[in-house]
Amino acid sequence: MTTGKIVAALPTFTDRHRRLIAEAAQAHGYTVAFYPDTQSAVADVGDAEIILSYNPDPAKQAPKLKWFCTSSAGVDPFLKEGVFASPDAVLTNSSGAYGVTIAEHIVMVTLEIMRRQQEYTDIVSRREWIRNLPIRAIHGSRVTLLGTGDIGQEAVQRLRAFRPAELVGVNRRGANPRGLFDRVLTQDRLDEVLPKTDLLIISLPGTAETRHMVDARRLAMMPDGAILVNVGRGHVVDTRALETELRAGRLHAALDVFEQEPLPQDDPLWTCPNLLITPHIAGNMTLPYTVDRIVSMFLEDFENYCAGRPLKHLVERKRGY
Amino acid sequence: MTTGKIVAALPTFTDRHRRLIAEAAQAHGYTVAFYPDTQSAVADVGDAEIILSYNPDPAKQAPKLKWFCTSSAGVDPFLKEGVFASPDAVLTNSSGAYGVTIAEHIVMVTLEIMRRQQEYTDIVSRREWIRNLPIRAIHGSRVTLLGTGDIGQEAVQRLRAFRPAELVGVNRRGANPRGLFDRVLTQDRLDEVLPKTDLLIISLPGTAETRHMVDARRLAMMPDGAILVNVGRGHVVDTRALETELRAGRLHAALDVFEQEPLPQDDPLWTCPNLLITPHIAGNMTLPYTVDRIVSMFLEDFENYCAGRPLKHLVERKRGY
Repeated sequence: MTTGKIVAALPTFTDRHRRLIAEAAQAHGYTVAFYPDTQSAVADVGDAEIILSYNPDPAKQAPKLKWFCTSSAGVDPFLKEGVFASPDAVLTNSSGAYGVTIAEHIVMVTLEIMRRQQEYTDIVSRREWIRNLPIRAIHGSRVTLLGTGDIGQEAVQRLRAFRPAELVGVNRRGANPRGLFDRVLTQDRLDEVLPKTDLLIISLPGTAETRHMVDARRLAMMPDGAILVNVGRGHVVDTRALETELRAGRLHAALDVFEQEPLPQDDPLWTCPNLLITPHIAGNMTLPYTVDRIVSMFLEDFENYCAGRPLKHLVERKRGY
Repeated sequence: MTTGKIVAALPTFTDRHRRLIAEAAQAHGYTVAFYPDTQSAVADVGDAEIILSYNPDPAKQAPKLKWFCTSSAGVDPFLKEGVFASPDAVLTNSSGAYGVTIAEHIVMVTLEIMRRQQEYTDIVSRREWIRNLPIRAIHGSRVTLLGTGDIGQEAVQRLRAFRPAELVGVNRRGANPRGLFDRVLTQDRLDEVLPKTDLLIISLPGTAETRHMVDARRLAMMPDGAILVNVGRGHVVDTRALETELRAGRLHAALDVFEQEPLPQDDPLWTCPNLLITPHIAGNMTLPYTVDRIVSMFLEDFENYCAGRPLKHLVERKRGY
């Protein structure tokens, strides 16, 4: 008495992950087909009831779909018109799987900028023994985290251990999750804290509301030498305005996300000084712990789904996260 | 009634540091001469009672010296024969000034190796958008800290925030300073923990006892893929044995210290794979906080000195730290 079909397509599944999903599927009378990527899965989703994958392409070919679970935290590609062939399909995401790895990325790139590691890499490549570049530290710095979700919360816990001067959160409601931040401001008070921010960490989702939230005016409010780290979505920052500040040597930045990805070959950012570029890897799926979390959150909601309970990781498509 | 002369030579003094030292000196009837480096100070130490500087050269020219305070934590260059013209001069060091900055360095280089940042730097330099290099995390890793002094203690506090699997200290007596470590082993039990160590952090001083403590046999005990970070003294590790493991791709390492410094131009380490080299900068004096600590520890002991009390940061020259 098979009741449905699951298509699960992730490149970083291990045998253990496949076994966990297969066992849960079988327990509820589901069949499951595994694929290493979405391309190869697309031809097999015509009769799929549930899809677990990373990009939305299969949704268009799945008229019988009831539930799409994306392994991403950001869902912006799923909110466009025409993505779903099945109008009533629900969407869950994997927010909560990436905080740990993205927080480690945030600390790394922050320290690379503060300790001038790009310059020291050049020095070492020339076999030189130069030791006197003035560096900075997270210790004693004033840190603002724009976005206090899973990423912001994992980041603030790690940053606190470095004994910064202050850890300020900024979010929509002003609530302080688990009391992790020294204080939390609502987004309309962002302008108050920017002039006192040595390190700005942005982990906001890509919604209409967040577009160019950090624009030329707000960048100009940040003190000389301040560092901006964006691991959320590229369009939160006005990139051309940021580039002007970086080229002037007034700000430093580490960008993992961009307004257009992949970053175009001729984009002037590639040669912009005072900028550390990574190709959207802060939260990729290569860390085994991340895949563990994606699978365990999917299975948690699979039990909810089979029992007719609300899905825990449901995305409010209108809100966008 | 001037009672003596202080010579203070550091390149990273600010006006504020000079003022603090001058005020304390005046309060006790001392004169003080400031120099930006030891070379320029050497000619003026013939009548010096107290020297605050980083390298031992002035000690040889100071027959009236009673107290040398080095701004370094490591004192190995001060322990050689003939360094002091004044046989009874006491030596203090600045251990405690570098833990904060070295701990930030340790976290940075560890993450750079785990997240393959050297490879991503190359990828970005070619404007490529490759995202799938398998990475690792401090989260869940088994960490051993060989050396539990100021550096080890600052490091373990930061690493704990990343939620590693275990944080094991190794030192001479087996005591657990402030309970900061999950457990602490005595050095004779190092072999027990090495096979279960994903990340080995070495912050030992350069003494006869520590020479090649981490030798070929012990390196071979570490699991495949393990990471070694040395920020203490280069001679603690048998560098040629480490190089063999790195070239075999079996271990990864970040070295800030070397058996010979500067690292010779023709040293094969410069081109060794799986190695991140920094030119002994983990604990340099360019971070203002570090100089603040050096000056405040010197002034603390200057008060002790003037009052005839024991000096707090006294180095036991025989022991070497």
